[in-house]
Order: sequence, then structure tokens, then C-alpha cells
Amino acid sequence: MGNSLGKLFVVTSFGESHGICVGTIIEGCPAGLPITVEDIQREVDKRKPQTSIAATQRIEEDKVEILSGVFNGITTGAPICLLIWNKDIDSSEYEKMKITPRPGHADYTAFMKYGGFNDFRGGGRFSGRITLTFVTAGAIAKKLLNLRGIEVLAHAVEIGGVKAKPKGFDEIRESVGKNPLKCADAEAIEAMAKAIERAKEEGDSIGGVIEGIALNVPVGLGEPVFDTLEGDLAKALFAIPAVKGVEFGSGFSAAQKKGSENNDVFIIKNDKIVATTNNAGGILGGISNGMPIVVRVAIKPVSSIRKIQETIDIKTGEKVNLLLGGRHDVCIVPRAVVVVEAMIAVTLCDFAMRAELLPRVIK
Amino acid sequence: MGNSLGKLFVVTSFGESHGICVGTIIEGCPAGLPITVEDIQREVDKRKPQTSIAATQRIEEDKVEILSGVFNGITTGAPICLLIWNKDIDSSEYEKMKITPRPGHADYTAFMKYGGFNDFRGGGRFSGRITLTFVTAGAIAKKLLNLRGIEVLAHAVEIGGVKAKPKGFDEIRESVGKNPLKCADAEAIEAMAKAIERAKEEGDSIGGVIEGIALNVPVGLGEPVFDTLEGDLAKALFAIPAVKGVEFGSGFSAAQKKGSENNDVFIIKNDKIVATTNNAGGILGGISNGMPIVVRVAIKPVSSIRKIQETIDIKTGEKVNLLLGGRHDVCIVPRAVVVVEAMIAVTLCDFAMRAELLPRVIK
Amino acid sequence: MGNSLGKLFVVTSFGESHGICVGTIIEGCPAGLPITVEDIQREVDKRKPQTSIAATQRIEEDKVEILSGVFNGITTGAPICLLIWNKDIDSSEYEKMKITPRPGHADYTAFMKYGGFNDFRGGGRFSGRITLTFVTAGAIAKKLLNLRGIEVLAHAVEIGGVKAKPKGFDEIRESVGKNPLKCADAEAIEAMAKAIERAKEEGDSIGGVIEGIALNVPVGLGEPVFDTLEGDLAKALFAIPAVKGVEFGSGFSAAQKKGSENNDVFIIKNDKIVATTNNAGGILGGISNGMPIVVRVAIKPVSSIRKIQETIDIKTGEKVNLLLGGRHDVCIVPRAVVVVEAMIAVTLCDFAMRAELLPRVIK
Amino acid sequence: MGNSLGKLFVVTSFGESHGICVGTIIEGCPAGLPITVEDIQREVDKRKPQTSIAATQRIEEDKVEILSGVFNGITTGAPICLLIWNKDIDSSEYEKMKITPRPGHADYTAFMKYGGFNDFRGGGRFSGRITLTFVTAGAIAKKLLNLRGIEVLAHAVEIGGVKAKPKGFDEIRESVGKNPLKCADAEAIEAMAKAIERAKEEGDSIGGVIEGIALNVPVGLGEPVFDTLEGDLAKALFAIPAVKGVEFGSGFSAAQKKGSENNDVFIIKNDKIVATTNNAGGILGGISNGMPIVVRVAIKPVSSIRKIQETIDIKTGEKVNLLLGGRHDVCIVPRAVVVVEAMIAVTLCDFAMRAELLPRVIK
Repeated sequence: MGNSLGKLFVVTSFGESHGICVGTIIEGCPAGLPITVEDIQREVDKRKPQTSIAATQRIEEDKVEILSGVFNGITTGAPICLLIWNKDIDSSEYEKMKITPRPGHADYTAFMKYGGFNDFRGGGRFSGRITLTFVTAGAIAKKLLNLRGIEVLAHAVEIGGVKAKPKGFDEIRESVGKNPLKCADAEAIEAMAKAIERAKEEGDSIGGVIEGIALNVPVGLGEPVFDTLEGDLAKALFAIPAVKGVEFGSGFSAAQKKGSENNDVFIIKNDKIVATTNNAGGILGGISNGMPIVVRVAIKPVSSIRKIQETIDIKTGEKVNLLLGGRHDVCIVPRAVVVVEAMIAVTLCDFAMRAELLPRVIK
Repeated sequence: MGNSLGKLFVVTSFGESHGICVGTIIEGCPAGLPITVEDIQREVDKRKPQTSIAATQRIEEDKVEILSGVFNGITTGAPICLLIWNKDIDSSEYEKMKITPRPGHADYTAFMKYGGFNDFRGGGRFSGRITLTFVTAGAIAKKLLNLRGIEVLAHAVEIGGVKAKPKGFDEIRESVGKNPLKCADAEAIEAMAKAIERAKEEGDSIGGVIEGIALNVPVGLGEPVFDTLEGDLAKALFAIPAVKGVEFGSGFSAAQKKGSENNDVFIIKNDKIVATTNNAGGILGGISNGMPIVVRVAIKPVSSIRKIQETIDIKTGEKVNLLLGGRHDVCIVPRAVVVVEAMIAVTLCDFAMRAELLPRVIK
Repeated sequence: MGNSLGKLFVVTSFGESHGICVGTIIEGCPAGLPITVEDIQREVDKRKPQTSIAATQRIEEDKVEILSGVFNGITTGAPICLLIWNKDIDSSEYEKMKITPRPGHADYTAFMKYGGFNDFRGGGRFSGRITLTFVTAGAIAKKLLNLRGIEVLAHAVEIGGVKAKPKGFDEIRESVGKNPLKCADAEAIEAMAKAIERAKEEGDSIGGVIEGIALNVPVGLGEPVFDTLEGDLAKALFAIPAVKGVEFGSGFSAAQKKGSENNDVFIIKNDKIVATTNNAGGILGGISNGMPIVVRVAIKPVSSIRKIQETIDIKTGEKVNLLLGGRHDVCIVPRAVVVVEAMIAVTLCDFAMRAELLPRVIK
Repeated sequence: MGNSLGKLFVVTSFGESHGICVGTIIEGCPAGLPITVEDIQREVDKRKPQTSIAATQRIEEDKVEILSGVFNGITTGAPICLLIWNKDIDSSEYEKMKITPRPGHADYTAFMKYGGFNDFRGGGRFSGRITLTFVTAGAIAKKLLNLRGIEVLAHAVEIGGVKAKPKGFDEIRESVGKNPLKCADAEAIEAMAKAIERAKEEGDSIGGVIEGIALNVPVGLGEPVFDTLEGDLAKALFAIPAVKGVEFGSGFSAAQKKGSENNDVFIIKNDKIVATTNNAGGILGGISNGMPIVVRVAIKPVSSIRKIQETIDIKTGEKVNLLLGGRHDVCIVPRAVVVVEAMIAVTLCDFAMRAELLPRVIK
């Protein structure tokens, strides 16, 4: 239970980090959408470490295959199965973690929940590798949203305590594609890179904040009172391991504002109703208001560090000093940027279908 | 669509702020639970304004009735319908808002989404009054959780920029029941009350932060990869109007920490595996780890203020200066505390049933 | 669990036969549909016994109230709550059935499933009275289908072993409205009435077969491989107490046919693709093919009879001779006709929305 | 949409008849269940034609692979992916069917529903081959049910108009395993075989009736009012292509019985409450009553026949005389027997989990 997301555009994730494969089923994708392996591979490749500074040395080839639901390069309306075979696996390090749970990891909770039967190798279902199945679904969602002119974008706004200065959407779009830290503020990047290198030297890890943006979202997406746009976006984003906070628009800073400061004033601009500010992050009453959707997610520092950490042996209860081997990212923020985009795209796609903004057959 | 929450313990909300009633259907409640109208009324009463400082003058009598699913004072396993008739309604102020949307409100998005057919009176489905339907469901969820020793608790930790000092669970429990601002820090309360009064004088409004806590949650609740405990709690909490951010444990501050600081170390204490810190907020890999669940929600300042605000006439596109009459809270934080508890309780209840922690029949 | 039906047009049933009320929540009804209490009452009234021959003497006043989701006579897009208060209740007969289950009834299974906590009075959730909640939902579904020219129709084709001769749709529509047995074959009606009277004299009961028809259903409704049109119609129809069989088109008789006989040949008629026969009952591959949907349901004889029946005392295990008092129908076929229509309408409505044949807002 | 079945034990089917593979995802299978490829292959092999009389010549090797969710031979609680690669494909015959739909097939409805984008080769998603994905899921469901002593069994009770005499459960179990027509009545088998051969000579096809049985089902499975055991079993069974009718217990013949004949009398036997007859087919009020579940499904004659059939060209509207090549079964009843078992097993498994009869972790 719990491995499917969405109501009409339904993404199901399967596979394990060190198992045979990781895969995705997409149910409810309209028929008639041209889609190639390259469309999906392009997104998958964005998740690869683009700099040696921050990321693991595991060479993840990660070649996507389309196993069903696409015929002659076009979606058929049937479930789409996307698969990535696992390769270059070294599970030798993980045997001990089964009973000596790594601090900050799901080792302990997974062991308890699944009675010790979970595939713990490489973190199993709790590995960052599982986000590959999010990204492949995101690739298709983005293509669908594109049909309605909706664009999803994410960028690092904070890494290791270094905050990026606010930038315009065009600047963000352009710079994220180019620079390995996926940050639009050139000055901040330098300090961020230093923070990562410092953490690396210390055998430690750092976190950050990613901002997700959706442009040209029409008014009306979201299904309150429970399926609010904020609520379902947040749920999707919390599926990314390491996310511990989600806020929209002015978010937590709204708590310190007055109503007169935080309310966004409606005006007419170019014959369209817009707001002069966007403290609402594009969402009012759980429904998109036509302004850019703006969401920020807090990414905790990677739990796997190269320092001795205290933990216990679950079976004996004895104290254990754990030193992790294996290959671990120092900071996953840059790699998580495309994952944030994917979760936003997948969620918007579902709401677009619920609002009949996307047809059952694309003509 | 979107008015039901949960998979096994399913809460459906219906009714409008100025319609005939607001109501709740609870599907999936185990048979055999003793439940009285008083059990539910007690929770509903907690939502009533307990001080004249912060809240509306609308006298909400709000008497709950049980229409189905309970027989001889015990749940039957059939859907439970809880109803509150609407009284003391004054809709005169709202007619104009239909086409001159209030800044910060759902007036505009609701009008657009529902083609102008939505019941806009009193905010309709987007009114804070709808949270009554959350609270009644929460009352039943709390009783169920109580069978397993699980306790849900919430308190105001910030109002109008005034932050409360951290307090112990016992202190929180005790003080929240007593003081109208639902804050456990006596010193902060005074400053908070002043902030509210100041905003009131200015015809303005303020927001704050509520912290929710769940104690004695066993290891194993949560259904990753998508139905994480964080994700579904966040989704439930974003259903509360005015919530714009949700974070767990160290939350957004985790972004500034190192892995070695943020990881919680496992130890054995009283023959139980516990963590020495709780940066994870009681959740690892989307699954409860046995530590207290700790979640904080950002509450934006109330959108309805007594100041002239600019907006537009949707039909004509003309600029309008809007001055709201009617009765509005200056700060909803205190009243929202029990609503936060309700959403946490309802979500935990659903996960408890998914984990077969609660039986289908209580004996 | 199990009291909601549908994916986009979701009907939730609540209430008990001898409780306070029976009610329905309809989630997902498009905004903008004009609907009056009379629209719903008309359908409810069709379920009332229209002849003293076949039915109970319980005077069921059954006045429908609309509690939410309709504003100024038009649906708002919010959940619609329809309620019927229970009146004229005599529960005196039922106390003993709790532990001496009536043969053919749900007394025993309900007792076991709900640990004896179920409201057994009048059959509780298992009473035919619960079908009122289906009929009120059906009323709204019919109005929606009507927007697309889809008509749902049902009639008795067999009662107590007497089979009606096949009739045309116009004849069926006309005669069902007029005659109390809801059968289109005047000759058969006479024999049916006699069969009912005979059973009544004997203190016994009889069953029959109802045929449901949907006209002008466009090609394309149904979501295989699992959500087939047959499958979801069957599921909906089996929710009617007493239904023990469902077949489409040639149904069970197809088992005796050859492929060359059973295949329906496609031709062009009036520029439209139609089939020369309708052995498929309007459904191919789980999807409507543009021909009339034709489904037949087997209705078992009423379980409550006025004869001494053997049963046991659940607590003591002793044999008991049960003679039921209370008011019971001899044959529910005529009253069930509108219920069959309701379940077909509700199901088609859901599929129409899934196929985006019905908009989210009606203009 | 529509390719997933179940609420807690969720089966998702994907793949196309002449595509790369057919596959199944099983979500919600408890952790701790030992499962081997052989367990699943054994069921898959039962679906293979066991006689040259009735079935296609396509050599379906159909080797199952487990891609996820099983670790060291035991389920992990994660989604299980089962895959069968397609081989020996000859799609040459199918190109023309895209626009000249075969009578009785889904060619026309699929073309219309999916805008001509569906993978029509070999019937695509509408092929009998898709039932492989049901059978693999059924293999796991059977293993789970087995933990509770529940056995699912099916057999042919009618083929080409030849009806089998009623047999005891032991006889059915034994003979079905041995004889290629999966019928327990040796005499009937001979006549059935002749009927098949005759149809084959004529280039025609025949249908039949399969009876499904579930033994040792405890009282209490089923979730009325909508998720009745009959309703969900029927829905699952109608997913099998060619099923056009479903009845339980006395089924359609109940329509001709009196209440006093059709009611099953409760008695105590070996300290257990049982019924002296089983007209209810093991289900009262939509809930299992402890008696054997008995369901019969009508299988229409195979639509693909070797006779010239009239149809039309969808594009031009011209009349076409269609003579199908390719490999087709004359009667699918024997091969469908294991598919019926699978759908029953999958449905019971879901209800067993909803009733908490199966644990989340098997110890």
C-alpha cells in the first residue's frame, strides 16, 4: 500500500535500489501523446550527478525502456510501464545495516514495519534511487502539461546555509540547465560549492532548500476541501526522501505578517485578472489563482556520513559504533531539483485531468 | 471531488457556511466504540472563541447531532453522520463579494472553478466554519487512538511574530486546556495578546504557528513511498484554510544543519529503542519511529480585515475599494489549535487501520 | 468501508432502516445543474408500493430534503446531501431476530461481521429501505445523463415464473409508468398478479427478473481491463438486496450459441455504425458500442415470509421455530424497478465523467 | 484508468498482446510470504491449451519473471512486479482489423475510445492474453488465502450446450487437474469434446459456463452496502473477456422459486452454524456466511471464427467481407477456468485484508 499517487493520472512506483530494476506504471495518460525514450531519458539524465563535488561515485547508467502503453511512438491510453535495470550494484556494505540501523535513515522503521523482510540492500525502497521512478513519470507529465502551456521549473535557493538571491523566471530557467548546483545566483553558487567541499572534507553532509515553480497554470486546479492544490503538492513532495518541510508563497514568513501585508491585491493587467504580489504562491482556497505556483521544500542533510556514529544492534540491544562505507552524496540538493519538478508536474497533471483541462484523447 | 479524506478511516465533509448545515460522514470506524454526543461536543466547543480578543462575534451555538452509525451509544460499523445545523446567519454582507473578490480569499478561485454557481455566502465551502466538520471527525479519531494509548496535542508556538519558549508535553497539555490563546508559555501569551489587540485596533489581522504533537505512536505507521506519514499529515493539515507551510521535526532549519547534527542517534532506554534527539519529528522514511510526532504549521494572517482594500469587479473589470463588514477573527491561531489536532488524529487513525493496529470490531 | 460507489461521481449511502434517517452524499456532481426537491421526490415516489398486492403496509412517507450542495436551485459543485427522515417505525418485532437469524437474511452475517453491534432493527443497513439512498442519487444521475440525451429505463420481465413477451422501448417506457407491476406485457401482468396473490395467500413470497436498458449511450463508456462497463454495472446492481444474478445481452444463453450466431454484425445505418443484433447488450470489450445497454438482474423471492421457518438461537445453539410478524412485501420486483434504473444511471454517470462526456461546470 | 483492481490487495495489469510484455503489479501483499517463480509458473501453465481440440496453436512459452517485491524468496511488503515477455508474435493479420472491426470484438469500441491510438495488434489490451496478468496475481492470492485454509476451485459445468452433472468438491478438484476440458463429469466431457470438434470443423466457436467455488471462507467477508461480495466478485469476473453473465447460488433460477424454497435454513452441525442448503451461494447481505461461495459465469462463444463475416470499413463506411486468419481458440472455457479461479482469489484476498483476516506481516 502507498506506492501509487494520483486519482486520474496515477503513478505507481516499484523496484528496489539493489534489486533487479526500478520501474513506473503510469495509468490514465491520455491516448495520442507522442513520447520517445529520449523524452524520458533527458529527464533521467538531469538527475545524474553533474559534478564530482556533491555526489556519489556510483555510475548510474540508468537507461530507460518503455515496456507498454506506447505504440508507434504515441501513447495508446493503456498503462505505460517504464523500466530501468539496475547495474553496478555493490551490496556488500549493507548487510550489517539490517540490524544496526543508520541514524537518520529508514533502516529501523522499515525493519520494524515489514518484520525484517524488507530488501534493505542499498536502502531498498527507501533509497534516493527510487526517485528515478518519479522522474520518469515526471517526464510524461511535463509533456502533457506542455500541451496547455504549463511549465514546471525548480532550482536550489539554499545550500548549506548559503541563500541565493531571488531571480526572475527566465534567469532561473536558463541557469539551472547550465550549472551543476542548479542555482540561478552565480555568487551564491561559489559559496555553496565551498560549503559542499568543506562538508566533504569533514566526512559530513549538508542540506538546503529547493524552490519549485509552475508557470501558466490556469485558474481552477485543486479540489478542496481535502484535495487542495497545496495539500496534494505537499504530499507528493514529501515522498522525496529528505524533504522535511513544504511551504507555499510567503509560507512560514506569513506567520509574521499582517493581513494587510500578506493579502495579494487583484488588478486587471493586459485584460487578465492578476495579483500585484504573490504571497499566496499562486493558490487561494486550495485552488490555483492563475499566478505562478511557488513552493519551497526543505531538504535535510544526507543521513549517510563518513563519520563514526553511535547506534544500536536491534537484536542484542548493544551499542555499536557505525562507520559507513559505500558511496554517498554529500548534498543531494542539486540532484533533487529535477525530482521536485517531477512531483510538481505529476500532481498538476492529475489536477488538470480532474478539471478536464486535459482530454482523454489528444487530437 | 476532493471532499473525502483517508483510505480506511474516511472522512467526508459536506455543508456550507451559510447553508442549512455542516456535516460529516465517517466511513470505516470500527464497530464497538462507545461514543456520545458529549464526546464530540466537547471537541467542537474547543473551537469556539474563548476570548473576545481574537475572534468573531458570531454566536456559533454549534450543537452536534449523531444521525447514523451509532446504536445504543456504540458504533455499529456503519457510516456515522454527524450534523450541525447552521443558525444566526447573516448573509447580507456577502452578495457583493461574489463579483468583487476579497484579497487573500477563495472568492475569485471558487467563482472561476465552479462557474459562479458556488454558494459564496459566508465563504461557502471555503469558510473556517467548514473546519467544524474536521473537528467532529477528529473527536471520533481521538477516541479510537486513545484505545492504543495514542494522544494528540497541539498548541500555539507563535502569534503575530511572538514566539513561545519550548515547553514539556505535560506543561503544554495542561496550559492549552486553560488559556484562551492555547499557548503554553505564560510570558509569550501576554505579548501575543497585545499583538492581537494592536492588530484589532488597526483593523488588521495576524497569523502564527501551531505545533502538533502525537505521543505514544508506535513504530510503523506510514505507507511509503507515496503515502508517507509526513505527506498525508501535510495534506490533511493544508485542508485547514490559512495553512501555508508544514514542517516536521527540525523542518526548514534542517537545511542549515550538517548530517552529523541532524541525525538522531538510536539508543536503548528502558528496554526500548529511542533516539536521543528528535530532529526527524518522529518520522523516518515516511514511517513513525516511536518518538513523538512533531509537526508545525504556518497560519497566515486572516484575509478578512477592516481596512479598505483594492480589488476588482470580475464582471466589469473595474477597480473597487472594498471595505468588509461582517464579523471576522483577528487571529484564528487559538481556534485552529483543535482543528490541527483533529487533522492529525484523523490521519493517524487512517494509518493505524492500514497497519491493522485498530481492529474492525472493538471487543 | 464499502458505503461509497463511483470514482468521479461518488455516491455515499448512510442511515439505518429504523434509525433517525437514511441519507445520501453525492460527490462530484458538476456545478450548474438545476435540481429541485421535486425532481428527486418523483423518483422516490416510484419506489413506493403502487398496489396493495405485492407490498408492505408500512406507510413510508419518505419526504426528501436537500441539505447541501444546491444553491438557488442549482448545484454548486459541493457535495450534495439528500436526507429522508424515518417515520412510522415499529421495531418491536426485530429484537428477537438479533439472535435468531431469519433464513435468507443478513441477520446472521451482519451479527458476525460487526460483533453484534450492528443496528438490527428493521434490518438496519441491510433493509430494502436503504435503496432509497440509491434512488435519490439516481434522480440526480438521470438529470445529468439527460443532458447528453441518455435515457435509463427498467421493467419487470419475469415475476413468479411468468415471463413477459419482449416489447419495444417505447412500449416499455409508456407502460412502466402506468401499471403497478412495471411490466410492459399486458397479458403477462395478469398472470403475474395472480402469482403474487397466490404467494400472499400461502404466506410465501416470489421473485423475478428486471431488465434495465440505457438508450443513446455513446460509444466509449467503460474503462477496461478492470473497470469494464459490465463489471461496474454488475457491482452496482448487486448492491440491491435480493439480486443474485446479472447478465448482459444474450447473457447466459450465449453459452449455448455459436460464435456465428452470437456475433453482432456491424453495418452503416443512417450514417451511423450500428449492429444488426444486440447479443452484446451494447457492450464490447467492456466499452459501450453505441447500441442500447441491456442488462437483466435476477431478484430472489423475498426472504421474509409468513410461514414458520426453522432457525437457531446464535447464543444457545438451540433450534427455534421462527414466525415473522411485521410488514413484508410478497414480491419486491415492481418496487425494485426504479432502484435498478438508479444503479444503472449512477454507474453510467460515473463513466460519462471519466470519459469527459460531462463537464465539471454545466453552462 | 481502470487497470487496477482492489482496495488493499491491489492488482494492476499492463502490457499488450503483441507488445513487448504483459505484466502485473501487486500492491499490498503482506511481507513474509514465501513465493517462488514456480508457484506462479504453475498457475500460468494451467492456462495453456492442454488439448489441441479447443485451443490456439500459438506456442505461448510464457515464462514468468519476478522483478521486484520478493527478496530471498520472501515477499518484502513492497510492490511485486511479475513479467512475461511476449514471444512468437505474428501481427501480420491484425493491421486490417484496425479499420474493419471484427464482429463481437472490442476492435470498434477500442478504436473509438482511444481515438485510433490503441495497440490493436492481437487485440492489444483486449486480448485473452491479458488474462495472464490476472493469473499471476491469482497465484499469489491463492498462496495468501491458503494461509487461512481458503481454497479456490473452478470447473467447466457447460460447454456448447452440454451440461455437466453436479459433482462433489473432492471430485471436482481431482478431475479438473487431470482432464483437459476441466470438467468433473466424465460423461459430459465426451459430448463437450464432440461439440468442440464439430464447431471446429464448421469454422465456428462455442461458449459455456464455468462454476467457481471457494471453500472454508469464514463468515464476514464483504463490505456492504456497495462493496458486496457478490458485487466485487462479479466486477472481477466481468474483467475476463467473453464473460456476459454472473450468478450466485440459485442465481437466475431463484426468480422462479418461492421464498420458502429459496431460503437456506440455519442449523448447528459439528458445533458450527451451517445452512442445510446453499441457494445463497455462500453470501447473505453481501457478506460471506461460512458456506461455500458458489458463482457461475457465462462464457460467450469466441468471437473470432473462421467463417466469412460481414463488417464495415470504419473510414469509408463500406461493407466488407471479413475472413480472419491467425490462430484462434474454438472454445476458451477450459483455459478460462484458471482465470476464473484467479479473479475469485484476488477478490477474496482483498476482502480478507479489509476484514483484517490477513496480517500486514506474516510471521
